[in-house]
Amino acid sequence: MHAEIIAVGSEMLTPHRQDTNSLYLTDKLNELGVEVRFKSVVGDNAEDLTAAAKLAMRRSEIIVFMGGLGPTEDDLTREAVAEALGLKLARNPEIVARLEERFAKRGYKFSLNNAKQADVIESAVVLPNANGTAPGQWVSGRYDGKDRILILLPGPPMELKGLFEGECIPRLKSRIPEQHIAIRELKIALMPESQVDAKVAPLYKTYTDIQTTILAGAGEIQLHLRCQKPTQAEAEKRVEELAEKIEDELGDAIFSRKGESLEQIVSYFLQMRGLTLAVAESCTGGLLAQRITSLGGSSRYFLGGAIVYSNELKTQFANVPKLLIDKHGAVSREVAAALAEGIRKRCLSSYGIGITGVAGPTGGTEQKPVGLVYIALAGDEGTQVVERNFPGDRKRIRWFATQQALEMVRRALM
Amino acid sequence: MHAEIIAVGSEMLTPHRQDTNSLYLTDKLNELGVEVRFKSVVGDNAEDLTAAAKLAMRRSEIIVFMGGLGPTEDDLTREAVAEALGLKLARNPEIVARLEERFAKRGYKFSLNNAKQADVIESAVVLPNANGTAPGQWVSGRYDGKDRILILLPGPPMELKGLFEGECIPRLKSRIPEQHIAIRELKIALMPESQVDAKVAPLYKTYTDIQTTILAGAGEIQLHLRCQKPTQAEAEKRVEELAEKIEDELGDAIFSRKGESLEQIVSYFLQMRGLTLAVAESCTGGLLAQRITSLGGSSRYFLGGAIVYSNELKTQFANVPKLLIDKHGAVSREVAAALAEGIRKRCLSSYGIGITGVAGPTGGTEQKPVGLVYIALAGDEGTQVVERNFPGDRKRIRWFATQQALEMVRRALM
Repeated sequence: MHAEIIAVGSEMLTPHRQDTNSLYLTDKLNELGVEVRFKSVVGDNAEDLTAAAKLAMRRSEIIVFMGGLGPTEDDLTREAVAEALGLKLARNPEIVARLEERFAKRGYKFSLNNAKQADVIESAVVLPNANGTAPGQWVSGRYDGKDRILILLPGPPMELKGLFEGECIPRLKSRIPEQHIAIRELKIALMPESQVDAKVAPLYKTYTDIQTTILAGAGEIQLHLRCQKPTQAEAEKRVEELAEKIEDELGDAIFSRKGESLEQIVSYFLQMRGLTLAVAESCTGGLLAQRITSLGGSSRYFLGGAIVYSNELKTQFANVPKLLIDKHGAVSREVAAALAEGIRKRCLSSYGIGITGVAGPTGGTEQKPVGLVYIALAGDEGTQVVERNFPGDRKRIRWFATQQALEMVRRALM
Repeated sequence: MHAEIIAVGSEMLTPHRQDTNSLYLTDKLNELGVEVRFKSVVGDNAEDLTAAAKLAMRRSEIIVFMGGLGPTEDDLTREAVAEALGLKLARNPEIVARLEERFAKRGYKFSLNNAKQADVIESAVVLPNANGTAPGQWVSGRYDGKDRILILLPGPPMELKGLFEGECIPRLKSRIPEQHIAIRELKIALMPESQVDAKVAPLYKTYTDIQTTILAGAGEIQLHLRCQKPTQAEAEKRVEELAEKIEDELGDAIFSRKGESLEQIVSYFLQMRGLTLAVAESCTGGLLAQRITSLGGSSRYFLGGAIVYSNELKTQFANVPKLLIDKHGAVSREVAAALAEGIRKRCLSSYGIGITGVAGPTGGTEQKPVGLVYIALAGDEGTQVVERNFPGDRKRIRWFATQQALEMVRRALM
């Protein structure tokens, strides 16, 4: 079965706004065994919208519209879909009453244009919206002699998600033959895509019934495995078999099997073992601490640390001897180690991380070019320092450095 | 004149990948006076692609295809566009030679499928790609009796941008009547959209010849003004007139007129006045430092600071008296002020910022709920503390807190 997603709104045809809801919808539709065949963005224009609806009904069984259900003159999705299907709109007095009540509760005036949100396409099921004013609509229609499902959802992500999960998934499930799909999402840090692929391609190529996708992100490779079988048990067994072979091949390079982020994995390990962490960051300037503390509850294992941009602060906050900096330079193996050890001592943490490098775009020299970063991890078992030459721009170099630091903590804790 | 953008690639119909090139293209097309009327994503399927190309040619004058020009069997854009136009493809021996040379230089084997990238649509202009293997193509064709421009670009952003700027913009300029468009991008921090709109709507509504767009982001409102006139001078004069009225109305709430970020503006001010900054962050956990140091050259005005997640570190790194924390709690006006003053003293910076709060999702109490954040700024002129109750989740609360901190620095420097 195929679906098509139409994002409605002229703002998404400007350089400033983008549809992101469709990623969520695609995920949910895929879980039901429905593939998304087209996505499009159409402006707030009745003619364009009607044409887009007709085109979509010619080629796809399920069509999801997102947006254009509000109270303004620009909100035209209801009208356009009704027009495309040759159906009428009728104002639903129950919805009007609910809207009036909602407005009264908040002490707002109910202006007439708001009633527009109560216009329902003939034969449509109204999908109540707990998180906003405009309800969704579900239309089982026929077009060109074929059965079509049209779903109208509001654009705000919270409203859209609430409606799709609460009202649409159960309805879709009852119309789609039950699917048995097993998925795995393996993640690998800091290995080039070509190297991962060279190792795993011989494995997954023999599993022609498993759809394998390799996604390369910044400092991270994801392997998505997806298998559909007549029963869930068969699908799980099959995908597990391939996942295990890949794990045998890549070993502990795989940090996640369920799609968790590297900071989440480090968080699990630290909490499980009752250990703590502190950081002293120079070129990453707080990015590592920020990533760690982006997780709620991180105060259980993260104590804090220092951003030691200036050399004085490297000494002041992480006890790095001035002489050491003078001798080896701020960007050096020795200073990275001293930062990790110093911050560990100062914070009384189980582990200390030190990062120093040249993030660019300026500040590079022949000996110490942009991209050169030293990352150190100090713990009971001693201190290790890694030297890296990261490619790319400032943003990328800083990201890779934090990825390397987290990966070192993960490996130390394994 | 209208354009339509078609992103080609099945990976963009999964939950994992999204077209982002179209934002860049839209920006560039708008600058030329071309509006984007539709955007769509089509998978690597010859039939779907040909149908999409035909549909686009029916409704738009300029059609830009992105992706599907590589060497694999899945790369079908050339074939589909040729089919839609009823034109033939021919292998171009010069491009083959260039590809062979490129491969030889890198010591790679040139396999036959790579030659596919040299297939050129009859009558097309080849657009050389300095950043990759697949050249772009420019086709001036006729469809249904109407003149159409079809542009085929590779998907990787660097290649696409290089080709569009170097090869396409000059060609488009020669075909499109010269446009005279003036734009302004005003930014306002930490004011609700409704409040901004209430103040500026009476102004921009009288300028019907200026397109005004209000965009609300996290802790930031953007006002985009765009005006088209027969001459550039007229357009500039008109848009400047409205911008000045808006500035009179909003005053120093406007932090940027050219779209700069808040951290950029703070950076200009600090450098202009030769001042420095240090931070002591609790709940924001490094996010503020990270934002400040995301700019190259930030070491000129940012010294560093401390992430003081634990109470011990608030004392250790920012001199906050233990008694003060015991008396008022870590999340308090007093501790925020002490953090700002302490870190300023320790780092010997012109300004010190202290942030302490409850970012959630756990840790809130009745007196100190999730979202409560104190932000302090200490300088020569004394210390100011702001108490805020930010709405939303952890990510949003932390972002708002850093936005508030930067805004306080900006206002202090004005």
